[in-house]
Amino acid sequence: MGSLEKQELSDKVKVAPGPTIIDPEKVLERIDGLFASDLLPQNPAHFEETKLFLQQVVEILISYIKEEYDPNSKILEFHHPLEMAQIIDLSIPDKPMELTKLLQCCRDVLKLGVRTGHPRFFNQISCGLDLVSMAGEWLTATCNTNMFTYEIAPVFILMEKEIIQRMIELIGWPAGEGDAIFSPGGAIANLYAMNAARHHHFPRAKPLGMTSVPTLCAFTSEDCHYSIKGAAAVLGIGTDNCFSIPTDYDGRMIPEALEQKILKCKSEGLYPFFVCATAGTTVYGSWDPLPQIADVCARHKVWMHVDAAWGGGLLLSPEHRHKLAGIERAQSVTWNPHKLMGALLQCSAIFIRYEGLLFQTNQQSADYLFQQDKPYDCNYDTGDKAMQCGRHNDIFKLWLMWRSKGMEGYRRQINRLMQLASYFTQKIQNTEGYEMVINQPQFLNVCFWYVPQSLRDLDPKEKAARLEKIAPKIKQKMMERGTTMVGYQPDLDKKRPNFFRMIISNQAITEADLDFLVDEIIRIGKDL
Amino acid sequence: MGSLEKQELSDKVKVAPGPTIIDPEKVLERIDGLFASDLLPQNPAHFEETKLFLQQVVEILISYIKEEYDPNSKILEFHHPLEMAQIIDLSIPDKPMELTKLLQCCRDVLKLGVRTGHPRFFNQISCGLDLVSMAGEWLTATCNTNMFTYEIAPVFILMEKEIIQRMIELIGWPAGEGDAIFSPGGAIANLYAMNAARHHHFPRAKPLGMTSVPTLCAFTSEDCHYSIKGAAAVLGIGTDNCFSIPTDYDGRMIPEALEQKILKCKSEGLYPFFVCATAGTTVYGSWDPLPQIADVCARHKVWMHVDAAWGGGLLLSPEHRHKLAGIERAQSVTWNPHKLMGALLQCSAIFIRYEGLLFQTNQQSADYLFQQDKPYDCNYDTGDKAMQCGRHNDIFKLWLMWRSKGMEGYRRQINRLMQLASYFTQKIQNTEGYEMVINQPQFLNVCFWYVPQSLRDLDPKEKAARLEKIAPKIKQKMMERGTTMVGYQPDLDKKRPNFFRMIISNQAITEADLDFLVDEIIRIGKDL
Repeated sequence: MGSLEKQELSDKVKVAPGPTIIDPEKVLERIDGLFASDLLPQNPAHFEETKLFLQQVVEILISYIKEEYDPNSKILEFHHPLEMAQIIDLSIPDKPMELTKLLQCCRDVLKLGVRTGHPRFFNQISCGLDLVSMAGEWLTATCNTNMFTYEIAPVFILMEKEIIQRMIELIGWPAGEGDAIFSPGGAIANLYAMNAARHHHFPRAKPLGMTSVPTLCAFTSEDCHYSIKGAAAVLGIGTDNCFSIPTDYDGRMIPEALEQKILKCKSEGLYPFFVCATAGTTVYGSWDPLPQIADVCARHKVWMHVDAAWGGGLLLSPEHRHKLAGIERAQSVTWNPHKLMGALLQCSAIFIRYEGLLFQTNQQSADYLFQQDKPYDCNYDTGDKAMQCGRHNDIFKLWLMWRSKGMEGYRRQINRLMQLASYFTQKIQNTEGYEMVINQPQFLNVCFWYVPQSLRDLDPKEKAARLEKIAPKIKQKMMERGTTMVGYQPDLDKKRPNFFRMIISNQAITEADLDFLVDEIIRIGKDL
Repeated sequence: MGSLEKQELSDKVKVAPGPTIIDPEKVLERIDGLFASDLLPQNPAHFEETKLFLQQVVEILISYIKEEYDPNSKILEFHHPLEMAQIIDLSIPDKPMELTKLLQCCRDVLKLGVRTGHPRFFNQISCGLDLVSMAGEWLTATCNTNMFTYEIAPVFILMEKEIIQRMIELIGWPAGEGDAIFSPGGAIANLYAMNAARHHHFPRAKPLGMTSVPTLCAFTSEDCHYSIKGAAAVLGIGTDNCFSIPTDYDGRMIPEALEQKILKCKSEGLYPFFVCATAGTTVYGSWDPLPQIADVCARHKVWMHVDAAWGGGLLLSPEHRHKLAGIERAQSVTWNPHKLMGALLQCSAIFIRYEGLLFQTNQQSADYLFQQDKPYDCNYDTGDKAMQCGRHNDIFKLWLMWRSKGMEGYRRQINRLMQLASYFTQKIQNTEGYEMVINQPQFLNVCFWYVPQSLRDLDPKEKAARLEKIAPKIKQKMMERGTTMVGYQPDLDKKRPNFFRMIISNQAITEADLDFLVDEIIRIGKDL
């Protein structure tokens, strides 16, 4: 039967009925004075009005998208919190609000928000608005289903399986190994990993708690994401038992220091069970040396986790994936398609090498969801692998987007971003007043200082002290002008004063946008 | 300045440009042969094509909505997993897929999915598709921002504050008390609560881990949600240290049994720190006696958490909120607006009574996000209160929907659902072949058996044994017919064989839909 229906499905490439042709002037009239309770499902006779309302929302969104992609439009209209609270009324009324008022709410909120998809927004690791992924999220919203069982999400469950399989192949685990689940962000994914590692070492901790096992300790680089320490706190391991291993000048974990620390912990009676290596660190975009770390982990029988939340997407580029060599030796991997791959927030996956471990770690076997007398193969129900009960469908927006690009499209897109990062690096290196924090960035993070004329001849200590205040000042003016956004932070471990961290991950970015940032910082900062 | 701009905003109630008037036949032609890379942002000249593509997606979604709300349409087209994998090709291609193919993917996925918003879908606690909330989620997708800082989500951060304040008032905590954060689902919200309780009792567990504190134990009813045990597992407390307190016939925790168990644990050297009372249990919709539980907690200085994930919405009904009396004595509350309030998945909040505790429990102070030298009041940054780093914007869809109803609209909607539950209860009580599991349901869950003729005169033991297999059989046929869906499960504690759990939470439900279910089960089951 399968093939027949397949045929039937693919033959049906028919046009959905086009937009209703109504004089735009009359649109508002038609829904004027109506409330949500006048639409479907409460009023089944008002299908046309329901449609008009939704189309109006979409018109507003499409106008916003047009503006967002215009490099000359502003990114934000900055207001301090108390001012903002004056400008926009956010209160909940006693009476329902009319549909036309709700449309106005949408416009106001968009007007006052930050356009994170703007080609000159370089502030965060997850940037850009992929329109196919967005369309996917619109459909996801309309389906409004939950990922715990095949029963209520049959296609999405199979889709998740398919995508997981493809991602596991990219990680490079042997056929038949590996399991995964999509989770609400990288921090929770890292929590899953550390929890699975604990369960792997000490399954009795699940029923009996941490007082039944030795004092566990974990290791991560000093440049890792803060969620690793967070996971140690939540799991009852303790942040003091999660040790920061020093990194080299370029922000890569030093494997010898890791091994020394593991030996020291063992000698002190602690039980080393977990190492987190980072593939693409948050600030510098550095790559911990995975093969050497894997060797250390193998020698000491410690679980190796790779936090590739940011860097994982590079596995899609045959030209650049060598930076992740060694990831196939990990026991677990975090990989966020909402970062480099550009899926809408949130889209994050945790991969665990051992089949069945996610299930054993997390299952609670709720009778009301995971009955074993269901009419289909219950192994397709994913809920008992999850820490969550209800789980948002994060797969469709990724699947549709991936199909829209194919493997080739991703390869092109990611290689292009890497080229842009080289371009920007050269620009910074060759522009007066700029200094690189790390000379040769390894990824799409480019960290730099802008040094105003007045600081250039100071002695290093005073220069550093004054530099600390420059980035915040420039950032403030940048936000007030609303022209561009880029993040900054200090590196306390390496005593580097506040510097800018440029992130080039939005496919909308062009060389002109990068040039603009360089010029804009000079405009703002030259007289500081 | 505030008031002027406010004026300006509210004056601008203007029509967005209406749908472009293009002959529907020509729509497909215009995007025929194009790929995602031909749209914005890659091809800025193709704004019209981009718009057409998005409008086509929306047309597909609107057709789906129309069908979903038609009670006579099917809820699903059931296929076993392996069959389904034959019917729909989910693979990722090497080459990009054309836009028209992507539109077809959308249609196929919708066709093969389960219509959870259908008025005859009674399968889950979160049912229904509120179209304003859906429109809100579409906007959220287009904004694609992250909730960790005011810097990149100024309006949404203030909106979350406003809604949290309103919800705290409904809980009834005194002015100035209470803090909250939106979290990805009730299970994670419950994890937040137990973690905050641990931190409140033993802040040293965060740096030093669980080996530094006494053996903690927690208490919850045997009818609680399974995520409470899950939280005990994750936190390293151990599921065996999370004790199930018996419930009465109607599924309510017995407070005397709770107190006895607390005393017993103390005498055995355990440290009782956390009690979870459930307001609206998952299966029976029962209400644990909050005032009595609060008394027990107060006597023993144990943290009282109320899991009102499901029942919290009843606080919006002045007529029914008395069922939650005593919730104001809790130290923490889980409340999921994606359940009774009908917000799209996911929308869940955790409320903690003590200001600052969420922050103290979860903060890791990442330099790159939560700089203290920002140009605005950093107390508005919520990221350091969260267990997550990136956090999805779950507030806008709730805010817009709430505005669309106002307090009055919610009151009406929730009272109406309670009426429908009474109607359905009477119908079950008065229809031959049906038996109630609990005679007087307390909420929107109605649990019942359908007893086919052939079982009615059996002795109780054999009847129970045969009844165990009836619900799964009826459910299977129901799914094959695709006409309606309702969940079932046994109650192992109370030795009740498989029964149906009806959930009446979709605002689209009418009496006719409830009648249909009763008749359909008879049609399917009478000859079993």
